Amino acid sequence: MEKTVKVGLLGLGVVGTGVLEILADHQEKIKKSIGASLVVSKALIRPGEDKSALAKKYNLELVTELEAILADPEIAIVVEVMGRIEPARTFIKKALLSGKHVVTANKDLLAQYGSELVDLARDQQRNLYYEASVAGGIPILRTIANSLAADDITEVLGIVNGTTNYMLTKMVQEHRTYEETLKEAQELGFAESDPTNDVDGIDAAYKMVILSKFAFGMTVTMDQVKIKGIRGLAAEDVSMADRLGYTVKLIGSTIKKDDSISVEVGPVLVAHHHPLASIHNEMNAVFIKSSGIGESMYYGPGAGSRPTATSIVADLMTIVNKMKKNTVGHRFTGYTQPTKITPPTENISKYFLSLEMPDEHGQFLKLAEIMSQAEVGFEQVVQEKGDGAHARVVLITHATSETKLATIQQAIKEKTKYKLLSLMKVMGE
Amino acid sequence: MEKTVKVGLLGLGVVGTGVLEILADHQEKIKKSIGASLVVSKALIRPGEDKSALAKKYNLELVTELEAILADPEIAIVVEVMGRIEPARTFIKKALLSGKHVVTANKDLLAQYGSELVDLARDQQRNLYYEASVAGGIPILRTIANSLAADDITEVLGIVNGTTNYMLTKMVQEHRTYEETLKEAQELGFAESDPTNDVDGIDAAYKMVILSKFAFGMTVTMDQVKIKGIRGLAAEDVSMADRLGYTVKLIGSTIKKDDSISVEVGPVLVAHHHPLASIHNEMNAVFIKSSGIGESMYYGPGAGSRPTATSIVADLMTIVNKMKKNTVGHRFTGYTQPTKITPPTENISKYFLSLEMPDEHGQFLKLAEIMSQAEVGFEQVVQEKGDGAHARVVLITHATSETKLATIQQAIKEKTKYKLLSLMKVMGE
Repeated sequence: MEKTVKVGLLGLGVVGTGVLEILADHQEKIKKSIGASLVVSKALIRPGEDKSALAKKYNLELVTELEAILADPEIAIVVEVMGRIEPARTFIKKALLSGKHVVTANKDLLAQYGSELVDLARDQQRNLYYEASVAGGIPILRTIANSLAADDITEVLGIVNGTTNYMLTKMVQEHRTYEETLKEAQELGFAESDPTNDVDGIDAAYKMVILSKFAFGMTVTMDQVKIKGIRGLAAEDVSMADRLGYTVKLIGSTIKKDDSISVEVGPVLVAHHHPLASIHNEMNAVFIKSSGIGESMYYGPGAGSRPTATSIVADLMTIVNKMKKNTVGHRFTGYTQPTKITPPTENISKYFLSLEMPDEHGQFLKLAEIMSQAEVGFEQVVQEKGDGAHARVVLITHATSETKLATIQQAIKEKTKYKLLSLMKVMGE
Repeated sequence: MEKTVKVGLLGLGVVGTGVLEILADHQEKIKKSIGASLVVSKALIRPGEDKSALAKKYNLELVTELEAILADPEIAIVVEVMGRIEPARTFIKKALLSGKHVVTANKDLLAQYGSELVDLARDQQRNLYYEASVAGGIPILRTIANSLAADDITEVLGIVNGTTNYMLTKMVQEHRTYEETLKEAQELGFAESDPTNDVDGIDAAYKMVILSKFAFGMTVTMDQVKIKGIRGLAAEDVSMADRLGYTVKLIGSTIKKDDSISVEVGPVLVAHHHPLASIHNEMNAVFIKSSGIGESMYYGPGAGSRPTATSIVADLMTIVNKMKKNTVGHRFTGYTQPTKITPPTENISKYFLSLEMPDEHGQFLKLAEIMSQAEVGFEQVVQEKGDGAHARVVLITHATSETKLATIQQAIKEKTKYKLLSLMKVMGE
């Protein structure tokens, strides 16, 4: 094999620049480890972009046509760091068809067109790696595919969105409001000016689709994921949860029950002593329950140019190792199972309900009757002293099904004067 | 390749039995993932041991001579789960020389004779894997070797002994004494009747030797590790540390400074907000600082038959994948560097000192003078109300070198009436 493996970079933003930095900083260690140098020889930029300083610094050729990379026989691996679906999807397909191996960090693309790309890579006998697409600095896909391959995973719970975790940390620790923390996250550059993908749970949902594939071999579509964000989450509910012994976290979960799974994203009450409750600020973590190992957790930065680039370079090194042995080898997703989603009647959880109650006699009795009829018990109830006209009552139910919870919600609306302010799952037995 | 890969098991204790269980429980998933069945066909036991029930249940042949396994051409991989140095070391060498691949969970052996075995495996072109030797349920070796291969690690901090972590958790949370928690750990089966290896930090030191090899490519001997255990740790110091904002943990550390490393095991004050402070009970965790990813942490069970066996089976699957491609491939320890230990003058840390002081005027002034002469400042000082004759004073220093600290220790002994009760490192800036 050549002593130098050449790489074509699609996109030269912060992550692309990070890849150049990591390759430059660690070239000696990389060479020692894989017995070859990894060099980015060409980078695709948009016409009009000025990246000449970078090109000079890292000694690479800038091109504005994909063809210039695909037609270059010296380039063995293409790294896609443009983001979004198109043209990334088309470019990756063309690269695989041209015989290039591919590394990408594109979670949106993988979540929506992962199967298509994985199938194409297999047909073309090319490697397709995408560790950086889920929790940038955490090698979670590799860990599930290798170390947990002999295990039977039952739950994957993730704090996989750094922006919302930063916001929730500030809301809990500094008793700030949703609006204040969102503003701060935007000022710090964690949250984009349009924070929809973060705060509405969409970004986390993409990652849970990919994790579901790895953990359970099932191909889940975005519309099969129950998604709830943290938009408008009340500071009162966050501090009430804290008083009851829980930290509110945006949790992405994919949970297996018999032969079906339930994939969700939403704010969840996590018990203070649970390892996920200690994941602060913009950090990410993935917590796994499995029959062999039991409980394990993997913690690290979820984003950032250097962590993401480090993950991409680790993928590049894996591919070079495979090239050396002339094998394509296992792509991450060898394990497949028929996809089956747990029905709402079987989806069991405890719930946190926050209700605004009129200061009027008899209302609590009605609530108790509704719960009793649905055969759902209270585990904790807190009623705060009201302002004379209104008061807030907060309760945590015993474990119940989604179906029963919907009945309760409906009954509260129809039969009582309570207003449901907030509804969150509570993790644990 | 054969559709069934046969395995010989050396030792049939709890971990060996765990391997049989995991292979039986997950045989379908394993077959799907590696395209072959993994079957233990023979197990080596001591003459006189009665394991006939196990043999019958798992349909395997019991042998009392190693030769019966080595001479069996159908056995491709040998799993060593006997523990201790001999005869494990001799048996593994013979297995490699007979052309078998080897998986072992033997940390004592790896820490002391790892290089010898790794070299022999390379000469014989056979795979030698030992993920389960460090933090049984945490795939930390694999993660360092693969995912962090493109990164530059500067620190590895581990809670890698479950027994002592259980004891410390109880001391902190339930304000119990060292003796009480040791007794409880023994009753629960975490600690052996002779707890030396655990409480004196030896077990953790073995693991740090192996981690140093992976993180920094350096071969450290046990006498190069500074080892301090938790034997006799005072409950008062644990709760004083808590009051000052720290949790006492037994930390194994291997830290790089320029081109040298310092490998230590000892009780350390970890700030409450640090992720390692939340690792409770018998769980283990390894925290890594690196230039690319930044901070990452890997959490899971450190021992137990099923987690350890799951790790062993993951190693078996990796070997089968390599056998399928007819490659021996990378053993874990491709990366080597000359070993260099940081001198005490360069080994910088903050320290926690707990002193018993006579209730006598002028002593504190002497202490302040000693510190001032050594140019080491106080960061926090707490003096508790004494009983009239004695009082306890606790202080945390600013960062200083091991050399200066030794000077201070000596001066306190010679020039004051203080008695040094306890001395621990304090983690962090």
